[in-house]
Amino acid sequence: MKPLTPQELEAQLRDIGARRYHRLHPFHALLHGGKCTKGQVQAWALNRYYYQAMIPVKDASLIARCDDPALRREWRRRLGLDRDYVVSLAGLLPATRFAVEAYVHFVRDKTLLEAVASSLTELFSPQIISERLDGMLKGYDFVSADTLAYFSRRPPLAQRDSDFALDYVRREAKTPDAQQAVLKALEFKCDVLWAMLDALYHAYVAPKHIPPGAFVPEDQRRSA
Amino acid sequence: MKPLTPQELEAQLRDIGARRYHRLHPFHALLHGGKCTKGQVQAWALNRYYYQAMIPVKDASLIARCDDPALRREWRRRLGLDRDYVVSLAGLLPATRFAVEAYVHFVRDKTLLEAVASSLTELFSPQIISERLDGMLKGYDFVSADTLAYFSRRPPLAQRDSDFALDYVRREAKTPDAQQAVLKALEFKCDVLWAMLDALYHAYVAPKHIPPGAFVPEDQRRSA
Repeated sequence: MKPLTPQELEAQLRDIGARRYHRLHPFHALLHGGKCTKGQVQAWALNRYYYQAMIPVKDASLIARCDDPALRREWRRRLGLDRDYVVSLAGLLPATRFAVEAYVHFVRDKTLLEAVASSLTELFSPQIISERLDGMLKGYDFVSADTLAYFSRRPPLAQRDSDFALDYVRREAKTPDAQQAVLKALEFKCDVLWAMLDALYHAYVAPKHIPPGAFVPEDQRRSA
Repeated sequence: MKPLTPQELEAQLRDIGARRYHRLHPFHALLHGGKCTKGQVQAWALNRYYYQAMIPVKDASLIARCDDPALRREWRRRLGLDRDYVVSLAGLLPATRFAVEAYVHFVRDKTLLEAVASSLTELFSPQIISERLDGMLKGYDFVSADTLAYFSRRPPLAQRDSDFALDYVRREAKTPDAQQAVLKALEFKCDVLWAMLDALYHAYVAPKHIPPGAFVPEDQRRSA
């Protein structure tokens, strides 16, 4: 098997985003289209928060494995974007926890190249974030620009971070094996984000089967 | 907080099973009631197989951490029940992989007591297995006693294994902290099994949202 050129590798990475990024998930259409109930938005926020809160843990574990000071320095800029941590995990969907932990373990246990590549979903995030900001501000009277401040700060940072990670991957993934590993890493990360929305949809949209112990929105309290 | 007596601890463990064991999941009612399509049974088998195939990995990692030769010897009897390994994971639901990996990591990273306690779902398995054998043989013409041989061999072994693990936990979990950790470990394990069925239900029963890359049954091929 012949190695891909950097251009071909990038094209295949972008193709994964076009097919598998969670922007394509039906839950996002509901969320961004103002079609969710307040309880569904609360459930999304609760579960999304866990993902967000674990990102610094993931980045710290990547930095801990870097021999290269330049990569370490670059990645350290990501830390501190979100210093919050999870105060209580009560009500979190177990499937969210399993998916996010899989991401943390992936970054800890796979090659550094794969760990960097798994951050490449940020290539696709500016679009989803602008849809989220517009859609949620318009669709829900209980959501304000303030509530969504984290997301409105993200696009320029995501752009910078994903440019760096894409350059790194294009430069370092030279053999077919390394390139396939990079593509698999991005698919894996898309699977993580997708599984989180599958779990939300199943519990809170249809058929509204809330797993034992998970958050029950007010309007599902009687039936659950 | 006062420690529970071994009897009280056992009663609370059994109560978790009564409330959270995956026998209560709606997918099981469909599966065992002969209400699944062939594609749904295939999807269950494919995803269940991954769980089954990772059990020896989990048990080996528990044994690797045992200082006590008696516990090591006892646990070693579990190995070899299923020597198959996963030849291809094509089509596996990512949520299955994340849940099963969470179980493997739990056993590797938590205390030995918690690792042993997480096996206690076997306390509740004889009933689910006999329902499965009866229901599936009656309900599906593509399922034979031979197909289900693994499960028909399980109940006496599960009984022996869970008796051992329950004795161990009753004996070793003496402080309130240790006892709470034991209860949490069983809840965690129930969450793992439950999340696997949530993912199956979401992908293959309703609303039949199959994640990108996962197995597509023949009768969903057009719509997916």
